Amino acid sequence: MFVNKLIEFIKEKNSPIVVGLDPRIELIPNVVKDKYFKKYGKTFKGAAEAILEFNKEIIDSVYDIIPAVKPQIAFYEQYGIEGLKVYNETCKYASVKGLLVIGDIKRGDIGSTSKAYSNAHIGKTEVEGESLEAFYSDSITVNPYLGDDCLKEFVGDIEQYEKGMFILVKTSNPTSSQLQDLVVEGRKIYEKVAGIVNEWSSKYIGKYNYSSIGAVVGATYPEEAKNLRNLMPSSYFLVPGYGAQGGTAEDVIHNFNEDGLGAIVNSSRGIIFAYKKEKKWSEEDYGKAAREAAINMRDDINKTLESHGKKYW
Amino acid sequence: MFVNKLIEFIKEKNSPIVVGLDPRIELIPNVVKDKYFKKYGKTFKGAAEAILEFNKEIIDSVYDIIPAVKPQIAFYEQYGIEGLKVYNETCKYASVKGLLVIGDIKRGDIGSTSKAYSNAHIGKTEVEGESLEAFYSDSITVNPYLGDDCLKEFVGDIEQYEKGMFILVKTSNPTSSQLQDLVVEGRKIYEKVAGIVNEWSSKYIGKYNYSSIGAVVGATYPEEAKNLRNLMPSSYFLVPGYGAQGGTAEDVIHNFNEDGLGAIVNSSRGIIFAYKKEKKWSEEDYGKAAREAAINMRDDINKTLESHGKKYW
Repeated sequence: MFVNKLIEFIKEKNSPIVVGLDPRIELIPNVVKDKYFKKYGKTFKGAAEAILEFNKEIIDSVYDIIPAVKPQIAFYEQYGIEGLKVYNETCKYASVKGLLVIGDIKRGDIGSTSKAYSNAHIGKTEVEGESLEAFYSDSITVNPYLGDDCLKEFVGDIEQYEKGMFILVKTSNPTSSQLQDLVVEGRKIYEKVAGIVNEWSSKYIGKYNYSSIGAVVGATYPEEAKNLRNLMPSSYFLVPGYGAQGGTAEDVIHNFNEDGLGAIVNSSRGIIFAYKKEKKWSEEDYGKAAREAAINMRDDINKTLESHGKKYW
Repeated sequence: MFVNKLIEFIKEKNSPIVVGLDPRIELIPNVVKDKYFKKYGKTFKGAAEAILEFNKEIIDSVYDIIPAVKPQIAFYEQYGIEGLKVYNETCKYASVKGLLVIGDIKRGDIGSTSKAYSNAHIGKTEVEGESLEAFYSDSITVNPYLGDDCLKEFVGDIEQYEKGMFILVKTSNPTSSQLQDLVVEGRKIYEKVAGIVNEWSSKYIGKYNYSSIGAVVGATYPEEAKNLRNLMPSSYFLVPGYGAQGGTAEDVIHNFNEDGLGAIVNSSRGIIFAYKKEKKWSEEDYGKAAREAAINMRDDINKTLESHGKKYW
């Protein structure tokens, strides 16, 4: 079951953090990309091959200190077919390295279409009686705007293939309040969504009392997190927005339960492009810089958990 | 400007309908797919090549009687990289045949990530100073759950490349009511979203008083359509749900303005797999069957528009 593995990896590695693999070719070291542009020209193939080498070095540098990575598919989709090939190769490489892969795809549509997305990312697609895998993920993110008959299409594959999903509840971006904070009968929309998520979560609880059906709750809204933690006690929270988007360890503390579990905190740019932030790093050191940034983030969150008396594992 | 072209194509072809290209390999005629499975085995390559031949025949059979096609990307994504290659080849083939292409992608994320999706589908991606195209669409569908700082990322490309987007307002699926119909200060969530869409629409009006920023409004909610038409007078509506999902011409009539414009009605399965519905068609006739179904749908909607005094063009 996805959530059981996630918790075991978090405990083994003493690390409730996720590294977001959101490559931007313009931020990738010249030492990596120049050789591919030389070989393939200024093409998607050149960019994609550079991204793959970059991702592998990042994964090699952090795989022993984190439980999971979260590739954001948009940053691969923008490099076309070559980009999406490298998305999938990145997912598989991370998996081989013993990491869980959270495909940040934010898909969601009417029932039959959501089933196709589920086939694509956490299930299998039937071709003349053969079940084939399109893209590899252990868990994905899903958009709830279309309601239950979208969400339910993913559940079959979550059960059958021991996968997971994180449903968007309260996102980390500035205008998340525009729809998500509207008040209906004394409750905000995101609280309504939390109620829906809680119902789904409750049906798929693993051996540590957490569910493979979780929620996305942005790091940038600490007060809301306290409330959402109560509304979805068994849901694991995927918490983006730490670091580059402004969230701190204190901001994310309420996403964790008293057992010190219940949340994984993501940082993308702050880890993978850490080599750009300090003069001590040369371009070649981007892997080392990412490792140091990941360790600092892990320690920051663990220390804050301890200071709140939340880390019992 | 996308919306100007759309209106001109609708008038030229006397046809406010869109054909949804949502292939399912199990519904594609054996006469098409057997040769590819023979050549490529039971693989994604075999399925994708069969889908491409099928799509081309459908496009060849209807391109002169419709203004646009709407490929649903999920049905390609589920066949992996091979599927997505064929998604893009389908989009380009339709464009060469003089059709507008609405990529039904329902993407949406935080600002920087939405920009990557915009690059991928309606804009360009920078690679070392070169602007490259990842996937071809004239317009796309977008999910509004993350609010304005998601939506605004698409607007730059809409302006620069004369593209469009249709923002989900009220979807056609049974549980669309779960979130979309919640009432906030006397107004439903989808009405709030309609307000957001109307603001964006109003900023990008073309020469026929319609905007390239439109709305998705399901055919299955006729009463809501009347209201939404008033809330978004200049937005073009993309109306899915006619046919297989249960929407009729009478159901969609309120999505049109008094000038007979303002909406395009989509049917997918009802057109492309029409050959399966009537005994008179053999497998080889799937193109002819699709053409007849598209003509019937066009005539059904045009007749209903006329009977409501709405067709002045």
